[in-house]
Amino acid sequence: MESFRIRLDYNNMLAEFVGQDGINPAEIDKIQAKIDAAVAAMAAKRDQMAWRDLPHNQDNVVSDILAYAAQVRAKFDTLVVFGIGGSALGPIALQQAIHSPFYNICQTHRSGGPRLFVADNIDPATMARLLDMVDLKTTLFSVVSKSGSTSETMAQFMIIKNMLEQNLGKSAAKDHLVCTTDRENGNLIKIARTEGYKTFYIPGGVGGRFSQLCPVGLLPAAICGIDIRQLLAGAAYMDDLCKSDNNPAYMYAILHYIAMMRGKNISVMMPYADSLKYIADWYAQLWAESLGKKYDRAGNVVNVGQTPVKALGVTDQHSQVQLYVEGPYDKIVVLLGVDSFHADVEIPKTFADVPSLGFLGGHTLARLLTAEQQATEYALMKAGRMNMTITLPQVNEFTIGQLLYMLEMATAFAGELLDIDAFDQPGVEEGKNATYAYFGRPGYETKKAEMDAAPAKNPKYII
Amino acid sequence: MESFRIRLDYNNMLAEFVGQDGINPAEIDKIQAKIDAAVAAMAAKRDQMAWRDLPHNQDNVVSDILAYAAQVRAKFDTLVVFGIGGSALGPIALQQAIHSPFYNICQTHRSGGPRLFVADNIDPATMARLLDMVDLKTTLFSVVSKSGSTSETMAQFMIIKNMLEQNLGKSAAKDHLVCTTDRENGNLIKIARTEGYKTFYIPGGVGGRFSQLCPVGLLPAAICGIDIRQLLAGAAYMDDLCKSDNNPAYMYAILHYIAMMRGKNISVMMPYADSLKYIADWYAQLWAESLGKKYDRAGNVVNVGQTPVKALGVTDQHSQVQLYVEGPYDKIVVLLGVDSFHADVEIPKTFADVPSLGFLGGHTLARLLTAEQQATEYALMKAGRMNMTITLPQVNEFTIGQLLYMLEMATAFAGELLDIDAFDQPGVEEGKNATYAYFGRPGYETKKAEMDAAPAKNPKYII
Repeated sequence: MESFRIRLDYNNMLAEFVGQDGINPAEIDKIQAKIDAAVAAMAAKRDQMAWRDLPHNQDNVVSDILAYAAQVRAKFDTLVVFGIGGSALGPIALQQAIHSPFYNICQTHRSGGPRLFVADNIDPATMARLLDMVDLKTTLFSVVSKSGSTSETMAQFMIIKNMLEQNLGKSAAKDHLVCTTDRENGNLIKIARTEGYKTFYIPGGVGGRFSQLCPVGLLPAAICGIDIRQLLAGAAYMDDLCKSDNNPAYMYAILHYIAMMRGKNISVMMPYADSLKYIADWYAQLWAESLGKKYDRAGNVVNVGQTPVKALGVTDQHSQVQLYVEGPYDKIVVLLGVDSFHADVEIPKTFADVPSLGFLGGHTLARLLTAEQQATEYALMKAGRMNMTITLPQVNEFTIGQLLYMLEMATAFAGELLDIDAFDQPGVEEGKNATYAYFGRPGYETKKAEMDAAPAKNPKYII
Repeated sequence: MESFRIRLDYNNMLAEFVGQDGINPAEIDKIQAKIDAAVAAMAAKRDQMAWRDLPHNQDNVVSDILAYAAQVRAKFDTLVVFGIGGSALGPIALQQAIHSPFYNICQTHRSGGPRLFVADNIDPATMARLLDMVDLKTTLFSVVSKSGSTSETMAQFMIIKNMLEQNLGKSAAKDHLVCTTDRENGNLIKIARTEGYKTFYIPGGVGGRFSQLCPVGLLPAAICGIDIRQLLAGAAYMDDLCKSDNNPAYMYAILHYIAMMRGKNISVMMPYADSLKYIADWYAQLWAESLGKKYDRAGNVVNVGQTPVKALGVTDQHSQVQLYVEGPYDKIVVLLGVDSFHADVEIPKTFADVPSLGFLGGHTLARLLTAEQQATEYALMKAGRMNMTITLPQVNEFTIGQLLYMLEMATAFAGELLDIDAFDQPGVEEGKNATYAYFGRPGYETKKAEMDAAPAKNPKYII
């Protein structure tokens, strides 16, 4: 599979290429002790990072998923996923990477698979329109929540359970629901067992943003016809690469860490392929939620974290690149490139005599896109802006598996370098508790009182 | 229209609410001279900012657009827009704001309008799939480029012109093409006149990112059934509000400016409504490309600019809010809220005895979404993070017109405060020229030689 190995090119992170703002290889040597400690920690903690075993330990799970997926494909024309955060971003990223952007619109683009809608928001207008559009009789609803207490997802579940039972009857309704949740804990597994829903499990130690390679990501992918064995094979292949001295995940993290320590608080991911656009979305959660932390492991207030920004080449050359090239030296840019596209279109040799058009004729769109990617890389380099490029020989399940696993490993390793817990998210509790208090949930009376006692807004500052 | 007036609430930008990181009203007083100068400049330069007249001077343009739109709706089932940057972001934002997210999928959601595809990238796989999917006989292609030399858009135009002529014949082909471009300059207008295409004009002094309210945005909107007169009426209403002492656009800019001067180099826009998600995309170009500049007007190197980040409530509470609450104090968050949604869905009172679910029953999704928005605002405030909220009483053409115009005015005013040219984009030239050089375009031999002379990449740094 060497010909499908993804590559990390970090020449343009270095001072040799981008000048004074770049990294000197000696800076990497200077933190070698920290790197060694992080490498040792990653080895020692393998057992606590259950997501790292997902490429290797799911033979039975995959068989179960594939058997169920075959049934679903025969029976339903629409799949709706209710999930939020990692439960949505992973499935969306994978679907967009592998399938046509017109998958839901054009039947021939989905080769017999059902339409896929990932309902990752509770916008009432969207939900009403979704429910108006789908035919309950031919739709499967997949509910994804590890805890079984995610308010948004569980509200959606309550709505659809009720609708299905009212429209199809309780007995038929249960075949239209499938739950992916913890095997033991939480309400969803209890409800699923009581009601007799088909269930898949999120292993312990696999948090939402690291769940793409467990049934959270695999189930909708398999139902839509994505080769999940190849996806896991790609992840396993990257796991091997991460054991070599030239570990791309660790190098990615080290370069980001050094950049962060030098004040680059923004990391842009800019794929040059529509298929990779939502990988940047998935990664934005992974990087932001894992590394954005108030405390280090010793309990010191550190307020670390780098803000991920999603861009798309070539499109955002006409939107964001002006800022990247001329604005503050506050970011690094990660380009994602593709060697070979699944299809191409030739530009005809019309207007040969028009200077600003004639030079395009006879080339293909892939050639134009690649030239623009290289041109952006060159412009960033020339402006002294640190950037690196990850290249996929082709966008397929095997390369996407590598990419996802590499970015997960890089994130975990960056957490070690920063000495923070990359796997919790204590900062979201405040908002959750405030929501409960607004809703008058029993047990949140103190929070409600605290909120009521907050200073009232001054109408003068509402204009 | 007072009941549809949008509101800016900036209480949580102030130290009184968010503590030491917040702004003290005295700080605004301290830069009063600068503010006064910017106000005077905005008044003096009105003639040079032709986009500010668009709400007022387009009666004939609107009539022409509406007449043409009626023809198109009767004749075509699909509209494809070829455009990039502002030519794409504005139309996408407006379409998503007003119409169902399932507009292209579900015929009843588009009330007789054609499907709309905005092809704002040159990804070869996407383009091949788009061309595979559409029926040329019933598709209108709208080509948008002010200069007539935008490589991406013109390449798309060359491809489709050729396909149409080969498939439908030259005479029929011309009715499937409409061009929006400069009235006098560039290749596109020359070609359009030679070929006999219908044309609409982008007025002089209206740059791409300020073009939403001219035919660039109005034409696809009108074809899809959006009330463009109400959109312009909303913009005109905001223009009036911007003449009052409580100018929301200027206040928005002043608060951002002070935050920028204090090192907040990131500005998050987080709509709590699916319909406003792509407004944040459109704004990201406006804010980034207008304010990200190397030089101030005196020619000093300043490297200013704030990086816009797009988030979506409630979805990204499960992705980004951890970072916003606990990470560095490097950003401000602008929430977009909606008072009243077009539809709502009630959560049934099932699982009344389950503590983490029962409290949801009997409420609606709109209530849950709004509570979560307020909870996020509260959590940000409590964590000492500056934030403000723009509220739309309802999402409709009139409120969207206000919002777009307010953000355009705010951007221009911020440019005055920063003393930079908010209307150029010199930083993108390097990349354009490098692309021409890669393609061997005559006249770019020197650039090619410069690029060839750049240091070769070291294979050691490609892993």
